[in-house]
Amino acid sequence: MKRKDYNLKEIAAHFGGQLLGNTEITVNQVATLEKAKAGQLTFLASEKYRPLLANTRASAIIVSTADSEATSLPRIVSDNPYLYFAKVSAFLNPLDSIVPGVHPSAVVEEGVQIDPSAYIGPNVVIGAGTKVGAGSAIMAGCSIGARVSIGTNTRLHPRVVVYNNCVLGSRLIVHSGVVIGADGFGLAMDEGRWLKIPQIGRVVIGDDVEIGANTTIDCGALDDTVIEEGVKLDNLIQIAHNVRIGAHTAIAGCVGIAGSAVIGRHCRIGGGTGILGHTQISDHVEISSYTMIGKSIREPGTYTGIFPFSSHKVWQKNAAQLRHLDELASKIKMLQQEIETLRKERS
Amino acid sequence: MKRKDYNLKEIAAHFGGQLLGNTEITVNQVATLEKAKAGQLTFLASEKYRPLLANTRASAIIVSTADSEATSLPRIVSDNPYLYFAKVSAFLNPLDSIVPGVHPSAVVEEGVQIDPSAYIGPNVVIGAGTKVGAGSAIMAGCSIGARVSIGTNTRLHPRVVVYNNCVLGSRLIVHSGVVIGADGFGLAMDEGRWLKIPQIGRVVIGDDVEIGANTTIDCGALDDTVIEEGVKLDNLIQIAHNVRIGAHTAIAGCVGIAGSAVIGRHCRIGGGTGILGHTQISDHVEISSYTMIGKSIREPGTYTGIFPFSSHKVWQKNAAQLRHLDELASKIKMLQQEIETLRKERS
Amino acid sequence: MKRKDYNLKEIAAHFGGQLLGNTEITVNQVATLEKAKAGQLTFLASEKYRPLLANTRASAIIVSTADSEATSLPRIVSDNPYLYFAKVSAFLNPLDSIVPGVHPSAVVEEGVQIDPSAYIGPNVVIGAGTKVGAGSAIMAGCSIGARVSIGTNTRLHPRVVVYNNCVLGSRLIVHSGVVIGADGFGLAMDEGRWLKIPQIGRVVIGDDVEIGANTTIDCGALDDTVIEEGVKLDNLIQIAHNVRIGAHTAIAGCVGIAGSAVIGRHCRIGGGTGILGHTQISDHVEISSYTMIGKSIREPGTYTGIFPFSSHKVWQKNAAQLRHLDELASKIKMLQQEIETLRKERS
Repeated sequence: MKRKDYNLKEIAAHFGGQLLGNTEITVNQVATLEKAKAGQLTFLASEKYRPLLANTRASAIIVSTADSEATSLPRIVSDNPYLYFAKVSAFLNPLDSIVPGVHPSAVVEEGVQIDPSAYIGPNVVIGAGTKVGAGSAIMAGCSIGARVSIGTNTRLHPRVVVYNNCVLGSRLIVHSGVVIGADGFGLAMDEGRWLKIPQIGRVVIGDDVEIGANTTIDCGALDDTVIEEGVKLDNLIQIAHNVRIGAHTAIAGCVGIAGSAVIGRHCRIGGGTGILGHTQISDHVEISSYTMIGKSIREPGTYTGIFPFSSHKVWQKNAAQLRHLDELASKIKMLQQEIETLRKERS
Repeated sequence: MKRKDYNLKEIAAHFGGQLLGNTEITVNQVATLEKAKAGQLTFLASEKYRPLLANTRASAIIVSTADSEATSLPRIVSDNPYLYFAKVSAFLNPLDSIVPGVHPSAVVEEGVQIDPSAYIGPNVVIGAGTKVGAGSAIMAGCSIGARVSIGTNTRLHPRVVVYNNCVLGSRLIVHSGVVIGADGFGLAMDEGRWLKIPQIGRVVIGDDVEIGANTTIDCGALDDTVIEEGVKLDNLIQIAHNVRIGAHTAIAGCVGIAGSAVIGRHCRIGGGTGILGHTQISDHVEISSYTMIGKSIREPGTYTGIFPFSSHKVWQKNAAQLRHLDELASKIKMLQQEIETLRKERS
Repeated sequence: MKRKDYNLKEIAAHFGGQLLGNTEITVNQVATLEKAKAGQLTFLASEKYRPLLANTRASAIIVSTADSEATSLPRIVSDNPYLYFAKVSAFLNPLDSIVPGVHPSAVVEEGVQIDPSAYIGPNVVIGAGTKVGAGSAIMAGCSIGARVSIGTNTRLHPRVVVYNNCVLGSRLIVHSGVVIGADGFGLAMDEGRWLKIPQIGRVVIGDDVEIGANTTIDCGALDDTVIEEGVKLDNLIQIAHNVRIGAHTAIAGCVGIAGSAVIGRHCRIGGGTGILGHTQISDHVEISSYTMIGKSIREPGTYTGIFPFSSHKVWQKNAAQLRHLDELASKIKMLQQEIETLRKERS
C-alpha cells in the first residue's frame, strides 16, 4: 500500500505552525524519535526525549518554540507539539474506508433500516426495528438487538453486542467485545433468595464517544444509563445501571462505576479506580489510578487513595501497625496528657 | 407494543398489601418517582426520595406502612415496598418469549439433543453430545462446546462461550461475552519455563444463577469449579479454577476470586474486591467494595480494607508517613519508656 | 472415550523418578488425593494434604523423597512432585487433535494463506493477506483482521478477535473473548475536547504464550506492543499500548498494565495488581496481588502494597486515623522535643 507524501508546507497549510529548514521535504507517516525512518515525521513533546534528537533518522520533526533550535532537521514549530502531532497523525492515518453493503451472511430481521452507505459485515445479526445511519460500519459478528438506534459514521468493531432499545450516537468507535445494554445488577432479597428486578431502562450514548475492548455498560433499571458526548472509555471498564457520565470525561482501563453514580463533565479517572453507587462527582475532577471513591466529590481537584507499595518485608511491618492505628493515636493522646502533667508539676 | 393494564385490586390479588385511595386505577408499567407518567406505578422505598412525592405524575404508588399517609395517590401499603415493587415489575415485565426452533445458520454437530421447545439462534455453534433443555434459548453467536449440559428455561444472551463438558442448570441468565470453562491458570515452573498443567475439571453451575456480561469462570484443574444455586454474579468478574461459591451469594462487578477459594452461602461481596487463593469465607459474610481478602474469614460479619481517598496533597503527606508507620510505633514505645523514667524520678 | 492405560514403569521411562511398590499397576488419568479413583495417579506436593493420604483411592501416587515412606501405595518418588505431576498430566491429557480444513461457513477474504494442516472453524472471518501456519486452529466465531500472521500449532478458542497487522507466534493458546490489537487509549486535549490519536502500532506476541479469557492487549500507538515468548496471562487482564512484557513472566487475573510500562523477564505478578504507565520493572520481580506499582522497580525481590482488611468497625477507626497520619507524626515529633526539654531540665 503506497502512502501519499506531503511536504511540510502542505502540512502547515492545514495545521499552522512555523516552518524552519527545508520545507520541501516530504513525509507520509508519523513515528517516534527512536524508530522514525526517512520519509517520516517525528515530534518532541517532552524534554525527557531530547537526548534522542541527535540520532533520529526522521525526515522532519515537530518541536516547541523552546526547542526550535535544538535540532537542524526540517521542522514545524508549534505551541503544543503533542496536539500538532495528533492532528497530523489523524490526517495521515484516516480510518479505513468502508465498502457499503450488507454481507450475504448477515442475518437482518424485518423492519430494519440500514442506510445504503452503511456496511454490515459477515455474520452480523440485527434485530427487528433497528436503524443504522449513513456511513456506519457494523463489523463481523456483531449482535445488535431490536429497536436499536445507531447514528451516522459510527463504527462497531467485530463482536460487539448491543441489547434491545439502546441508542448510540454518531461518530462512535466501539471496540471488540464491548457489551452495551446487558441487565444491571438489580436484586431484591426475598426470604433468603434473590429476586431479579427487571432492567427496563436503556443505554443512551452521545456522539463522539469511544469505548474500549471488552468494556460493559449496563442498561438502566427503570431510567436510562447515559454516556454523554465526547466521553472516552478505555478497555475492561464496568459501568453499572443508571450511571451518568458527563461530556468529555475520560476513563482509563479496569475502572468500575457502581449503580446510579453521576460523574461530571471533563473529569479524568485513572485506571483501576472504583466509584461507589449513588456518589456524585462534580465537573473537572481528576481521580488517581487505583483509588476507591466512597463518597461524593463536590469540588474540582485531584483526589487519591493508594496504599504505597514497598518491599514485602517493609510492608509487613507497616501493615501490622496499620491494624493498630487507632490504638497508636490513643497512646499519643495519653502521652500528651502525661507530659502535660509532668510539665505542670515542674512549674 | 400495547402493554396490558392492571388495576390495583388485581395487583394486590397477586402480591397482597393494603389498598388505599382509588383502587380501580390501572397501571401497566413501573417507574421512578421522578420519571413516572400516567398509567405507571411507582414506589417509595427510602425516605431519601420522599421530597419527590409531591411532584410525581405516577398513577399509583407502593409505600411502607410508615408512609401510608404521606401521599394521597392511589396506593399499595407494604411491609417492604422495594420487594413489592420487584415482584410487580417482574410480573409486568416478563422475559421476552422465545420462538422455538433452530436458526438455519446455526452449526449443530452430531448427537446434540435440543428440546423441541428450545431456541437456537443465528450463527450459534454447538459441539457433539451437548444437550439443551426445554424452553432454553441460546441466542445469536453463542459457541457451546461438546458434551455440555444445559437445563430448562435457561437463557444465554448473544456471544456467550461455554467450553466442553460444562454443566449449566435451569433458569440461568447468562449475559453476553461470558466465558464459562476456559482453562484455569495452572502452571508449574520447569527450569525457567512455565509448563502448562492441563485443566481437566469442569464448571458446574446450579439453578437460578445469573452471570453478568464478560464475566469469566474457569474450569477446574482436576476437580470442578462449582457455582451453587441462586448465585448472582455481576459483570467482569473473574472466577478461577476450583473456586466454590455457596448458594444465594451475590457478587458485584470487577471482583476477582483466585483459585480454590471457597465462598460460603448468602454472602455479599462488593465490587472490585479480591479474594486470594485457597481462602475460605464462611456463610453470611459481607465484604465491602475494593477490599482485598488475604486470609480466611471464619465468622459472619462485615469486613473492610479500603485506603480512604483524600485530596492528592493530603494523601501525599499521609502516604509518606505510611511507609514509616513501624518507625512511628517504635518512637511511641520509646517515648512511653522515657516518660515512665521521668515519672519514676519525680516520685 | 476409552483412555489409554500406562503402568508406572512406562511413566518413569518418560519422566524419571524412583519407583516403589507394585510398578505394574496401571493409571490413565491424574486426580487429587480426595477425588482419585482406581486407575488414577495422584500426588502429594504439600504437607498440608498429607492427612488425605490415608483415605485416597488412587492406584498410585507421586511423592517427594521426604514422603517416600509416608504411604504404601505404588509410588513414584521425585524431587519435585508437582512438576512431575504436571508432566504426567500433560502426557495423559494432550490437546484435542484438530481435523484440518476450512468450515464452509467461514468467510475468508482474498489472499489469505492457510496451511493445509490448519483448521478454520464455523463462522470464522479472516481478512485479506492473513497467514495461518501449520497445525493451527482458529475456532468458531473468531474474527481475524487483515495482514495478520499466525504461527504454527497455535490455538485460538471460540470468539477471539485479532485486529489488522498483529503478529502471533507459534504454540500460542488464546482463550475465548480475548481481543488483540484494539486501539490504545491515546488522546490529546484540544480546547476541551479529546482528539483521538491514531494507534498505528501492532501487537507482536512471541511463541508459547497463553492468554486467558476476555483479556485485552492493545496495539501500539506508534511502535508495537510486545509480549515476549513464554509469557502466561490469566483472564481479564488489560495490557495497554506499547507495553512490553519480558519472556516467561506470569501475570494473574484482573491485572491492569498502563501504557509504555516495561515488565522484565521471569516476573510474577499477582492478581488485581495495577502497574502505572511508563514504569519499568526489572527481571525476577514478584508483585503481590492487589498492589499498585506507581514507580519503577530496579531490584529483584517481592513488593507489596495492600491495605489489610479487618472487621468493618475496626477498619473505620483505623481508617479515620489514616487521614490524620501526618498530624500524628507531627505530634510525635513535638512530644519528643518536649520530653527532651523535660530531661534537660531534670539534669
